[in-house]
Amino acid sequence: MFRKGRFEKEMEASASSYTDSLEEDVRLFKPVVQINMAHTIMLADRGIISKPDSSKILKSLLNLYNTDVAKLDMSPEFEDIHMVVEEFVIKEAGEVGGKMHTAKSRNDQVAGAIKIALRDEVLKVQENLIELVNSLLSQSEKNLNTLMPGYTHTQIAEPTTFAHYMAAHSAALLRDIKRLDDAYESLNSCPLGACAFAGTSLPIDRNQVANMLGFKRLDDNTIDSVSSRDFALQIMSALAISMVNMSRIAEEVLLWSSVEFNMIEVPDEFASTSSIMPQKKNSVVAEIARAKAGQIFGDLMGALSLMKALPLSYNLDLQELTPMLWNAIDQTRDAADVMSKMMAGVKPNKDVMKNRVKSGFSTATELADTLVMKLGLPFRDAHAIVGRLVLNASREGKTIDQLTVDDLKSASKDALEKKIEISESDFTAAIDPANAVAARGLPGGPAPKTVAAQIKILRDKTKQHTKILKVRDRTVHETEQKLLKRVRELSR
Amino acid sequence: MFRKGRFEKEMEASASSYTDSLEEDVRLFKPVVQINMAHTIMLADRGIISKPDSSKILKSLLNLYNTDVAKLDMSPEFEDIHMVVEEFVIKEAGEVGGKMHTAKSRNDQVAGAIKIALRDEVLKVQENLIELVNSLLSQSEKNLNTLMPGYTHTQIAEPTTFAHYMAAHSAALLRDIKRLDDAYESLNSCPLGACAFAGTSLPIDRNQVANMLGFKRLDDNTIDSVSSRDFALQIMSALAISMVNMSRIAEEVLLWSSVEFNMIEVPDEFASTSSIMPQKKNSVVAEIARAKAGQIFGDLMGALSLMKALPLSYNLDLQELTPMLWNAIDQTRDAADVMSKMMAGVKPNKDVMKNRVKSGFSTATELADTLVMKLGLPFRDAHAIVGRLVLNASREGKTIDQLTVDDLKSASKDALEKKIEISESDFTAAIDPANAVAARGLPGGPAPKTVAAQIKILRDKTKQHTKILKVRDRTVHETEQKLLKRVRELSR
Amino acid sequence: MFRKGRFEKEMEASASSYTDSLEEDVRLFKPVVQINMAHTIMLADRGIISKPDSSKILKSLLNLYNTDVAKLDMSPEFEDIHMVVEEFVIKEAGEVGGKMHTAKSRNDQVAGAIKIALRDEVLKVQENLIELVNSLLSQSEKNLNTLMPGYTHTQIAEPTTFAHYMAAHSAALLRDIKRLDDAYESLNSCPLGACAFAGTSLPIDRNQVANMLGFKRLDDNTIDSVSSRDFALQIMSALAISMVNMSRIAEEVLLWSSVEFNMIEVPDEFASTSSIMPQKKNSVVAEIARAKAGQIFGDLMGALSLMKALPLSYNLDLQELTPMLWNAIDQTRDAADVMSKMMAGVKPNKDVMKNRVKSGFSTATELADTLVMKLGLPFRDAHAIVGRLVLNASREGKTIDQLTVDDLKSASKDALEKKIEISESDFTAAIDPANAVAARGLPGGPAPKTVAAQIKILRDKTKQHTKILKVRDRTVHETEQKLLKRVRELSR
Amino acid sequence: MFRKGRFEKEMEASASSYTDSLEEDVRLFKPVVQINMAHTIMLADRGIISKPDSSKILKSLLNLYNTDVAKLDMSPEFEDIHMVVEEFVIKEAGEVGGKMHTAKSRNDQVAGAIKIALRDEVLKVQENLIELVNSLLSQSEKNLNTLMPGYTHTQIAEPTTFAHYMAAHSAALLRDIKRLDDAYESLNSCPLGACAFAGTSLPIDRNQVANMLGFKRLDDNTIDSVSSRDFALQIMSALAISMVNMSRIAEEVLLWSSVEFNMIEVPDEFASTSSIMPQKKNSVVAEIARAKAGQIFGDLMGALSLMKALPLSYNLDLQELTPMLWNAIDQTRDAADVMSKMMAGVKPNKDVMKNRVKSGFSTATELADTLVMKLGLPFRDAHAIVGRLVLNASREGKTIDQLTVDDLKSASKDALEKKIEISESDFTAAIDPANAVAARGLPGGPAPKTVAAQIKILRDKTKQHTKILKVRDRTVHETEQKLLKRVRELSR
Repeated sequence: MFRKGRFEKEMEASASSYTDSLEEDVRLFKPVVQINMAHTIMLADRGIISKPDSSKILKSLLNLYNTDVAKLDMSPEFEDIHMVVEEFVIKEAGEVGGKMHTAKSRNDQVAGAIKIALRDEVLKVQENLIELVNSLLSQSEKNLNTLMPGYTHTQIAEPTTFAHYMAAHSAALLRDIKRLDDAYESLNSCPLGACAFAGTSLPIDRNQVANMLGFKRLDDNTIDSVSSRDFALQIMSALAISMVNMSRIAEEVLLWSSVEFNMIEVPDEFASTSSIMPQKKNSVVAEIARAKAGQIFGDLMGALSLMKALPLSYNLDLQELTPMLWNAIDQTRDAADVMSKMMAGVKPNKDVMKNRVKSGFSTATELADTLVMKLGLPFRDAHAIVGRLVLNASREGKTIDQLTVDDLKSASKDALEKKIEISESDFTAAIDPANAVAARGLPGGPAPKTVAAQIKILRDKTKQHTKILKVRDRTVHETEQKLLKRVRELSR
Repeated sequence: MFRKGRFEKEMEASASSYTDSLEEDVRLFKPVVQINMAHTIMLADRGIISKPDSSKILKSLLNLYNTDVAKLDMSPEFEDIHMVVEEFVIKEAGEVGGKMHTAKSRNDQVAGAIKIALRDEVLKVQENLIELVNSLLSQSEKNLNTLMPGYTHTQIAEPTTFAHYMAAHSAALLRDIKRLDDAYESLNSCPLGACAFAGTSLPIDRNQVANMLGFKRLDDNTIDSVSSRDFALQIMSALAISMVNMSRIAEEVLLWSSVEFNMIEVPDEFASTSSIMPQKKNSVVAEIARAKAGQIFGDLMGALSLMKALPLSYNLDLQELTPMLWNAIDQTRDAADVMSKMMAGVKPNKDVMKNRVKSGFSTATELADTLVMKLGLPFRDAHAIVGRLVLNASREGKTIDQLTVDDLKSASKDALEKKIEISESDFTAAIDPANAVAARGLPGGPAPKTVAAQIKILRDKTKQHTKILKVRDRTVHETEQKLLKRVRELSR
Repeated sequence: MFRKGRFEKEMEASASSYTDSLEEDVRLFKPVVQINMAHTIMLADRGIISKPDSSKILKSLLNLYNTDVAKLDMSPEFEDIHMVVEEFVIKEAGEVGGKMHTAKSRNDQVAGAIKIALRDEVLKVQENLIELVNSLLSQSEKNLNTLMPGYTHTQIAEPTTFAHYMAAHSAALLRDIKRLDDAYESLNSCPLGACAFAGTSLPIDRNQVANMLGFKRLDDNTIDSVSSRDFALQIMSALAISMVNMSRIAEEVLLWSSVEFNMIEVPDEFASTSSIMPQKKNSVVAEIARAKAGQIFGDLMGALSLMKALPLSYNLDLQELTPMLWNAIDQTRDAADVMSKMMAGVKPNKDVMKNRVKSGFSTATELADTLVMKLGLPFRDAHAIVGRLVLNASREGKTIDQLTVDDLKSASKDALEKKIEISESDFTAAIDPANAVAARGLPGGPAPKTVAAQIKILRDKTKQHTKILKVRDRTVHETEQKLLKRVRELSR
Repeated sequence: MFRKGRFEKEMEASASSYTDSLEEDVRLFKPVVQINMAHTIMLADRGIISKPDSSKILKSLLNLYNTDVAKLDMSPEFEDIHMVVEEFVIKEAGEVGGKMHTAKSRNDQVAGAIKIALRDEVLKVQENLIELVNSLLSQSEKNLNTLMPGYTHTQIAEPTTFAHYMAAHSAALLRDIKRLDDAYESLNSCPLGACAFAGTSLPIDRNQVANMLGFKRLDDNTIDSVSSRDFALQIMSALAISMVNMSRIAEEVLLWSSVEFNMIEVPDEFASTSSIMPQKKNSVVAEIARAKAGQIFGDLMGALSLMKALPLSYNLDLQELTPMLWNAIDQTRDAADVMSKMMAGVKPNKDVMKNRVKSGFSTATELADTLVMKLGLPFRDAHAIVGRLVLNASREGKTIDQLTVDDLKSASKDALEKKIEISESDFTAAIDPANAVAARGLPGGPAPKTVAAQIKILRDKTKQHTKILKVRDRTVHETEQKLLKRVRELSR
């Protein structure tokens, strides 16, 4: 495109297709058009180009804005979307089209366009994550009293409820949403006017352009503007962490829906069967979500490696970061979407869960705590006694609900040569999982009332985030409408 | 340690050394002692243990607090620092020591201790990054008028100043500091009371403990408390991104101090020579800083992979994340420290820079801009004309300062068959790099006055961060002193 | 597809599009058809299905083989290419088509198809890497006497030749080719017959199928067959390492084509200019190749994370590894291709290189070696003396070719208070870079004759690899032709 | 150390400690001494240094060889182990010690020393992996008839045996061992004589040194010798893949030892209990091994990022790769060691496994295959019928062993409106898991006899590898002894 001044030879075909970014740039089409609109208006306002010239350019940009990107001429010779847009305008508006690129470079334009596109994308990811949180919290609300074993080290540990687990995942996902909030804030700064990296001597107005594009502030330094992609790395990190959190939900879905655990039923619409084993019900959605986490780690790793040791300012390497960014965005958004639907339909097998809690010695800690409270034993002694009780029971093939105070007494003797006294009712209360759960009414704990309180807190946070999202979305949208209105007026 | 109830066999030696974490836990020693102090006070306040018992325990914890960690008994059988602390107390305070672990688990304790240690560490990293920013801004202040070529694609592009480059790096690093701010905020939430993951039925007071340990709030859900390490992943991401930014400074130091660029002099104290080539001056500090970035990416990647698809709640896998976290912290802190010292001593070779700017066609854009402004040419035409001027000059072996208005005119004819008129003085002004830089007075640009303005903005941000740091540091410190004071009173 | 027996509900649309793999499976189309051909022939030969049935199936498979994949019905309900193929056959051949899937599962079929596709792809990557080696070795041959400074720590160190550098990169790339060789060997093992993972009780003949598909041997264990993708991880590692090696060539191209180094001229066809700076010549191909390395690291990292802690046997997670594998393949192949063309056209600026060698103290080591050999000094003393000589010269602004024996003598005095005697001719010989290079005639060294010897060795290795490639390519191709011939006969 | 000629200032303390590598270099101590021995002998043989001088040096090196590395002076000013060794010799042997460094550089020496150390380390990793394979194969041998459900998608799929699973993991690990074999071969090439990167004009004999150090061949190009670490990347890749394979064993241990699966008993010596839940038995060794995989991915990723875009030849960045390499080596070796011990003690709960196979519809495929074979149904029809049978049974709460031929007939009607006839005995045989397994006698399949055959194949491969290991180990050891003998003779 720009070769004619400098070079005598065209680019080698393989080199040209190797370095063009047209396919990936489609996502930047509208933002690039918007930037050109805002920039052109400013150029005219500042007298850098004439009103009639700007009018022609804006008219053509408006046509372009309403054109389906699929219908544009995307020949590789155009290198990138920036050139496609410029060519379109020059073709329509004539030679004056060339003035649109005054005091502007692909370097600042691409940074600006990525940020504009990203603002939208981040909001969409957050929206889907909020959906997932809501889906989990609804499960939580419905299952405040659904007893289930809680796990540590993939081993049954203590009794809790399905509600408590669902709230735990929600709490983690809310931090993901918060991280994206921070990242949004960090990217909402305008690079336009940085030009190649050193600004321009033409009397442009950076603030006007930033305002028209809905940016909150200007980048502080023009070299930094075109050289940095840490805003993208920050978002990719937040996405990778969020995929970690979703992969953990996926893992539990897979574990719990196994025949052996049999604690939840995954809705048929989110499962598949086997081409060879007709009895199978495979949680394929959970498998894919789990696997995709790795892919997003890869995107982040690729982007970090790419940025390492790049000298300032712009290098074409930066172009290769963007596809990884979009992939991380898309995959996280899709994972949140499909998981929110799946989790809404998951059904806990309440009886299985309850029976497993009862038989699994999960109230051992509660029993030890009781020994501490009622008998004043040091916790370590209580631990040793109950440990022995469990060992003895295992040997005799008994489950905890089959044990008596006498078993406890002899365990105490075996373990510490210590006589203890405890009432039948205290003993029975301690080993009843529903009691144990209800007793754990501390903030954040599993008791139905405190989980209800957690849900309230988490719902409130979710609402707050929704509010922020809406404000941001409206701001961006209204800014765009205002810009288009102005363009329409000026292009008449 | 806790095996005697449950198991009959000791752990296999290789298994025991494979799973213990004592070496890495040293960092958690003081935080673990503090947690035990706060927890014991709370237990006594709530009547869960008696005042005399708590007094004995606290006395022993105070002794322990003042003990050099290197002198503790760290036999592998203790598994981790939590057991070492408990053993110490039991040994000193007798059997009542066992009560300290009431309503507490290693699961919540380790999460709490990591967060306490991390609060300190994050502040230290930020402090060093601030040092580095200050070091760069001082260079910037001293070099507002130090002309140098600015680069894109590792090619000389347009003139700018050394000040502008140093400010660019500062702006990026300030975002790193901000990201650590966000991460600090996100980690400052107390997991204590989560116990194994399901809380306890004992009437503990989570808020009291959180307050005594200086946490801003409670974790919302106790399962999440012991299962999650996204606070660590968030910090590691921020560190990895910061290492990217420092590796880019390092790369430029290496590039610019090469014989070919010869644009800066690295202080001898940060360089080494060769065992075989006596003439060499190698920027080894920059090389190590560049290389370390990769290591931190590895830490982050390791941590993400480790967390992927882990079912809730606690799994011992989490233990293996911590060493990677500490390494990322240490390496980033050290890199910032040594680079801030090195960058303070870097000397720009002003004459070399100036000559290169003059001879390198770097004012070509300025010349094109002039054609746009003075002659009203579309930018694309101006670009084509100047492109041809450069091509012609290269062929004749001329540099830009040897060119005349006539050369420009004939270039215009060659490129576009177009006659142009421009005054000698406009031409001369356009191709003078000092003029070009001075003319670029837009916000964020290279003109000395606007760089001065940037420095002010960046200094202000730095001061704001320093203020936050100090407040946080004081808060943590005063909280600790208050806790110790209380312990001293109660252990009398 | 297979849902009708097991489920009552269709898959949710988002879940179905989330889990299908049709887009990525296009690459497996032909391999899947081939597998079905070989499998059907075997089923008929073993009497598991009747000859007429097999004849109908094969006829339809042959049609399918000759069908453009773009024209196939790829509705998401088909989930993957396996189902698309089966549906096609059932549609054409009628109900007997269903027999094709006897004693076969998607699990073994997909592993087999990936391996078949991969055999081809690996050969193509190797072919392009060989092209690149040849391109570098041709440069090497043409530049045996092209003196240039050699670098350590990005600093001029000792004199060498452009030929020596080009041979160095070739040697590294030949190890990449070798690694792909090893990986090819490792993947050339047939999973077919593993079915879902436990084989079948039907009397199939695994060896016959393996032979017809050109596999060298059978997988040893059928669970392992469908569970493992380490063959893909091995290839992705080899590709990542090869991208490292190519990124290093790219880095040097960028460095050396900078105005400051000015040591090579990149052909115009592989460079671009700037939209704003008409004088720029940017090595964009090298930038993209450098950046892409990061992407391939990401693919590898994603794949490793994905595989971590997956229980056996087949999990749908494995499906998500394949796109990362293909991307790594494609990017490495393209990088090698475009770099081989670019490197063929690179022109060393011989005069610049020579002058830099002369002026850059690069012969200091040679001078020190001379002091060792001629005067019997310990190397450390010689090092100290020459170091001081360089320091003194730098201070006086002299380059090495301006120094005299007297300068050396006084440096010796300054450094060690030692008097030395050396003849003018020895001194002059030592500091002449062409002499220094010619003198380094040891194997692997820079002397023109030994570089010529290296080139011979490297060319021989390249030829050996080419031979292996050709044999493998022919084997695969002939096997396929034989299979098709057999299908044609049987489907008549 | 070498500063005195070139610099006037000492290195800044923080810079010096930032760039020294002494701690990590301990591992290179003996290799560096050996290299100096071989090099000195060669220098004397070639007349480059005198016999008496070499004698003094060798004597001192022999003393050093027998010195505990912990007792050496490791002051940071020495930078690295190379200087420590040289200083020791100079101190003991006097000024002639300085001659040892003639025609040698730290650049080639460090590459050589890493390779020598690595040869040993790789053999040790392989040894432990072989142990693990043997441990798994012994389990396999003991459990040829131990029926268990085989899984796909974490769902019970078809019956197989514990032996078949253990053999599957063995097959994967044997590929890991093979990859390390290839890597060993690739690293066994000598860089010595490359000096800084350009060799030397002194008449050294590279082949003699390579022989004395047990290298198989010379590196082809001296620049490549000091610049490349792809041998390390190749090994790290192989280790990362091996950690993937071990993490999958670990995951199954965790899954299968859960209360819900209850299919294996992990030996107490490899488990721990909880500080709060006395009934717990946690497979902590498996958890750590699973987690460590992530760390090794991180090491690899760090190393790849570090190497990306490094210009040739030596850069100090390379120094930072080595600690990641050693960590990957150590962790893989330890994982294999502790897992081989743990897996030797794992006990399958045979009854649980058998009951689960019976009740879990795992023979559904076998039943479908029977319909294909006995009735000539297309597989898809058989699949649909058996799918419906399973659905009906699930609804009625029946397990497969409670079903009858009539159930099958009505399922056929429900699914396809098709009447089928099958004998009671064929039906019963098909749904008996022991029958199903025994019938799958194809190579690689689960039938006891074919698993026995697999074990033989895998044992043979293991033996072959053991043989290679022993030869390599002996070669290296004998070469070292020969060198020491020669040194003793010459230093008299």
